[in-house]
Order: sequence, then structure tokens, then C-alpha cells
Amino acid sequence: MVDVHSISTHCTRTEFVGIAVLDTIGLVISGIDETLLEKMNIGKKYRALGLLSSRTGAAGQLTAMDDALKATNTELLSFDLPRDTKGWGGHGNYIVIGGQDVSDVRHAIEVALELTNRNAGEVYISESGHLEFAYSANAGEVLVKAFGAKPGQAFGFFAGSPAAIGLVMSDHAMKAADVEIISYMTPSIGTSHSNEVILAISGDASAVKAAVLEARQVGLELLIAMGTYPEIPGTPYL
Amino acid sequence: MVDVHSISTHCTRTEFVGIAVLDTIGLVISGIDETLLEKMNIGKKYRALGLLSSRTGAAGQLTAMDDALKATNTELLSFDLPRDTKGWGGHGNYIVIGGQDVSDVRHAIEVALELTNRNAGEVYISESGHLEFAYSANAGEVLVKAFGAKPGQAFGFFAGSPAAIGLVMSDHAMKAADVEIISYMTPSIGTSHSNEVILAISGDASAVKAAVLEARQVGLELLIAMGTYPEIPGTPYL
Amino acid sequence: MVDVHSISTHCTRTEFVGIAVLDTIGLVISGIDETLLEKMNIGKKYRALGLLSSRTGAAGQLTAMDDALKATNTELLSFDLPRDTKGWGGHGNYIVIGGQDVSDVRHAIEVALELTNRNAGEVYISESGHLEFAYSANAGEVLVKAFGAKPGQAFGFFAGSPAAIGLVMSDHAMKAADVEIISYMTPSIGTSHSNEVILAISGDASAVKAAVLEARQVGLELLIAMGTYPEIPGTPYL
Repeated sequence: MVDVHSISTHCTRTEFVGIAVLDTIGLVISGIDETLLEKMNIGKKYRALGLLSSRTGAAGQLTAMDDALKATNTELLSFDLPRDTKGWGGHGNYIVIGGQDVSDVRHAIEVALELTNRNAGEVYISESGHLEFAYSANAGEVLVKAFGAKPGQAFGFFAGSPAAIGLVMSDHAMKAADVEIISYMTPSIGTSHSNEVILAISGDASAVKAAVLEARQVGLELLIAMGTYPEIPGTPYL
Repeated sequence: MVDVHSISTHCTRTEFVGIAVLDTIGLVISGIDETLLEKMNIGKKYRALGLLSSRTGAAGQLTAMDDALKATNTELLSFDLPRDTKGWGGHGNYIVIGGQDVSDVRHAIEVALELTNRNAGEVYISESGHLEFAYSANAGEVLVKAFGAKPGQAFGFFAGSPAAIGLVMSDHAMKAADVEIISYMTPSIGTSHSNEVILAISGDASAVKAAVLEARQVGLELLIAMGTYPEIPGTPYL
Repeated sequence: MVDVHSISTHCTRTEFVGIAVLDTIGLVISGIDETLLEKMNIGKKYRALGLLSSRTGAAGQLTAMDDALKATNTELLSFDLPRDTKGWGGHGNYIVIGGQDVSDVRHAIEVALELTNRNAGEVYISESGHLEFAYSANAGEVLVKAFGAKPGQAFGFFAGSPAAIGLVMSDHAMKAADVEIISYMTPSIGTSHSNEVILAISGDASAVKAAVLEARQVGLELLIAMGTYPEIPGTPYL
């Protein structure tokens, strides 16, 4: 019989890179099994894979990975948005990257874990719902593939739950600045049935940032109006 | 850096109408942004929108909105059923209505919030699962669009979770009274992968009510047989 | 007004068979309503139905039902995998079987409940995620239909959440033994948006068992590396 307490919390597996807030784990596989790789349907270019996977959060981790890919010679192979958030109304994430060099892939995951901790400063979780915000001055490959961001342009993201809060945030953001909608998602469209309205926007950096900040102010006011103050699993940075 | 505690729980935004049980928020937008409206794919007839959105419950809020629309000059534009219930096995809801007159829309949302509190009396949540019941003597536009109810006829609804409880409730209800099935839903069919069997029924008012009451009795007996008594976020009214 | 506390936890309904861990209920319907049976779309061969339904777990209960069907003259009619696990990142289950003889169906459900308790010994739930394992030396009808198992051959199953853990488990299992992948699932493929990578495997009994045990060791090390030890709702038996 297995005795789980004989296993240390200090993992020595070569695959283990580290953990971050929001139940995030970072892993690498240096030479993935060929049969499994085929089933994964991510091409056969790389056998060194990097994995970032969280119970809570999507935009923060995707933005973290976007920056991590810029800093390394790695490529996005797939991303999934499970319906999770540990009982809350949003997504988790499962991101797979590949590279020729396992140390490069490992470095990308290290960077992504560090930035996940940073980006978690813009996740707000109350008893009633949650808000998530993301911003990048310079969208890379991950944000292009995940949200239709325009390469090299500023990217903004916000999600509100219960969903109606997200729509009012969206309306304010669109009126606050001259930005373009690149993704619009609801419980039925583009999400995994999460209880969110989500908007991703593109445009001039200062306009995108102004829109995200306006969405944040409105979202916080409405979420707090539901009766409790949100907890923040990091330090707000926007 | 944003200080969330500088924001009051007494929201003064013009969009904020109020809250209700089951983490429900009611909002209005008096002149929605045109670009956003286009993305919403709900037509361009109205720029005054009303929003009702909850973490938990679907039939209660849809029935509340059904009554709210009868009392006002407003129209159902969309409804979504996120997979939510704050860690339980059911749905939340996100309902959008429209009207020419923002005060009419606001009034509809006020009525819907009040009736959401009332209808929550037929939601039963135990440690193991949940039950939800709804009844209308006179189905309107919302119940027609959401569940295929027959306009002006009596409408009944019940959901049981874990799903098997819902099927036994359905069997008893169908044998108890001469009613017609208008919606049958399971984790794979018609739900957002919720852990429920759901039946919506139509027919003579007394038959529909008898069927719902029989479903409730059976459902409560089976849910309680799982070991704990349910909590009720309101006062049972059926 | 209904008084829920007037209802006993000792259910005397003829439909009630019993309960098991993981919020599992077992039920039988001796003569299902004809109209309801038609909506269920499971054929009209049987009017005696057996139901097994849980908030948490899928492979354990499907494997339990697989054994239960071998011991009785009953047949699998449908199975659903709701997105549930009471706030965790996996599935619940809702399984419907049929038989000519209601006592046979009842016996199948009794066996399935008992084996559900046993199989729950291979479910590991921590603060951060969960793991599930299943093994059968001799796959029957249920495992064939649910996971593409080969009739009469050994069957192995494992799921890891957050999803990335499941992929590393899969990689190790495939390298540990000569087995064949029969199902590969991710949050986007084959699941109800659960936060898992799942592998089901077939092959020689000792190879399948070795692969499952390797997956368990790796999965436990990675899950525990996230900071907390898992709870086990039974006694590990593999």
C-alpha cells in the first residue's frame, strides 16, 4: 500500500521546475514518449516540452508565458482553458510549449512561474465572484494565438464574474478609450462555460491601459457592491 | 496601486440596481457602446439593457425574469447558463433584456431581483447535492425561449443533483400527473455539463403543480438519504 | 410549506438502494414512465433501470459498474461525465443500466456501490489538485464503451489535475511498460472541460499494472510538491 507521507514536498524529479500562486505547477519533459506525443496532436518538431498548469487564472498565465517565450527560444504548442478556479466561476489553464533545448524550455517555465506570481496581483476574488486583468505593451505569439492580439501591439484583457459585471466593465472600457475588441467571450461563447464576460482589446498602449484601468475601477465597485471585499493573491501592478 | 478598501460596498454607479441571494447582481446600461453591442449579437433594437446574473440558480431567476417582463415593456435578448453554483453541481445564469426606456428596464431588473429572493425558497442545497424547483401558472416569453414552455400555460421545472436523483424525481412526476415534457436535460444534453437531470413540464395548472410537488417530495427524500439536510436560501413557497 | 426536517435520513423509497463515498447514490426504477424513457434515448428494451451517480469520480465508478455488470444479467445504457468534483478540477458520473429483472438490477447497483467504496482508495485529493487511478484485469462492457478498452484484456486508467501533472504521469507510464493508449483526454478533448490529462491504457496485465503504479508514484510526487498531502477517501488497493 502506498504511504503518501513517505513522499517529500521537496520534489527531486527532473521534470519538476517549481510552483506559483493559484495552484500553478511548472514542469518540463526532456524527451517525451513518441506514442504520447502523437496523441497530443501538437506536431513532432519538439521532444523537449514545457508545461504550465493552474487551477485558477488564464490571462495572467498566458501573458506570463507570452513574456517567457520572448526571453527564450521556445514555441507555444497548445493551451487549454479548463473550467476550474477551485469552485469559483472561471478558468484554469494548461499551456504546453516546446523547444530544441531542454534548458531553454526549463528557463521559459521558470520565467513563466515568476511572472505568474506577479500577474496574480491583478486577480481579485471575493465571496461572490472574481475579476481578472492583464496588460502587455507588446503582444507576442501566445497572446496572438490565444486572444487574436496583434503582434507587437498593446494588449489588454479583463474578465468579470458573475458575468454581468464583465459586460458593464466592457461597456465602460470601450467608452473610456479608443481601442479595438479582439475577443468577446460569454458563458456560451469562447469560454468553457465559465460565469464570465471577457473582453480582450488591442490598440495604442496608453489607450489600452486606460481601458483596462477603467474596467478595473468599475469591476471592483460592482464586485464590492455584492457585499464582500476581494482577496488578491499578489500585489496589484497596473 | 489600487486600494480595494477605499471602495464602498454602497455602490453609487448608475448601472447598479441591486443584489439578491445566490450571489445575484442586477444592472442596467442606459446606452451601450455600439461596437460592444454588435459583438453581443443580440440585435440593435435596444441600447438600454438590463442584466441579471447569479453564481447559483437558473430556473428561479429565469422565472423571476419571466414575471418581470410581463410587468414591464421589455424583451428577453439572451440568456446563458454558466457551469457554476460555487462548487456545487449546477448552473448559474446570465440574462440580458432590452427596452426602449431605461427606467422600464431598471424596473424589470428590480422586480427580477425581488422575485429571485422569493424563488430561492425552492432551492435546496445539502453537503451532497442540490434540488431546484420552479412553477409558473402562466408562462411568458422567457420560459418559452429558455425551456420551450407553452405561452400562457402552466410551467413546471425541477432539477436534481447528483443527476440520478433528478431522473427518479422525473419518473415520479410523470406518473403523478398528466403533464407533458417540454425539456429533458442531462450532464451531456442541454446543460453546461452540470451534474443534474432536469425536467421542464407543461400542462394544466393543477397537474403541473402536483407533478412539481411530487418531484420535490421524492427529491428531498433521496437527497436527505445521502446524509445531511439541505439549507434553503429563502422560504419554500410551493 | 415543506419541512425538510420531517424527512428521515433513513430512506424507505423502493427506489433507494444505498449510498457510497464521493457523494454517490445508487437507485433503481422498476417500471420507468414510458414518455420519460423515450426522452432518455436509451432504447426501450428495459423498463427496470439502475442508476449510479456521484459528485466526484468517474473511472472508479465506471470500473465498479463494469464488475457489477459481469456479476449480473444487466446492460450499460448510458453514462455521463458531468464537470463536478465539488469544486475540484474533475468529473462526477451518472451511469444508467438496464435489466429484465429489477432484483438483478438492484443487485448490480449494490455491487457497484460496494466497489465504489473500494475503488475510492485510489482517489487522492489535495488542496491543489487530485489524482485518480483504476485498474481491471479483465475489461468488460462498461470499460469498452467508456474508454475503448479491449474486451477481456487488462485496463488501466489515470488522471492528474492540474492537467500538466497528468501529462508527466502519462509520459512515465508509457516509458515504464509496453502498453497501448486507448484514450487520451485533456481539458479540451474528451472531458467536460475538466482540469485533467487522462490516459487509459490496454495490454498485458502486468504491464498495465506496472504503468499505472509508475503513474501513481510520479503523480503523487508532483501533487505533493505543490505543498500539501492528499486525502484518500478509501484505502489504496493497487
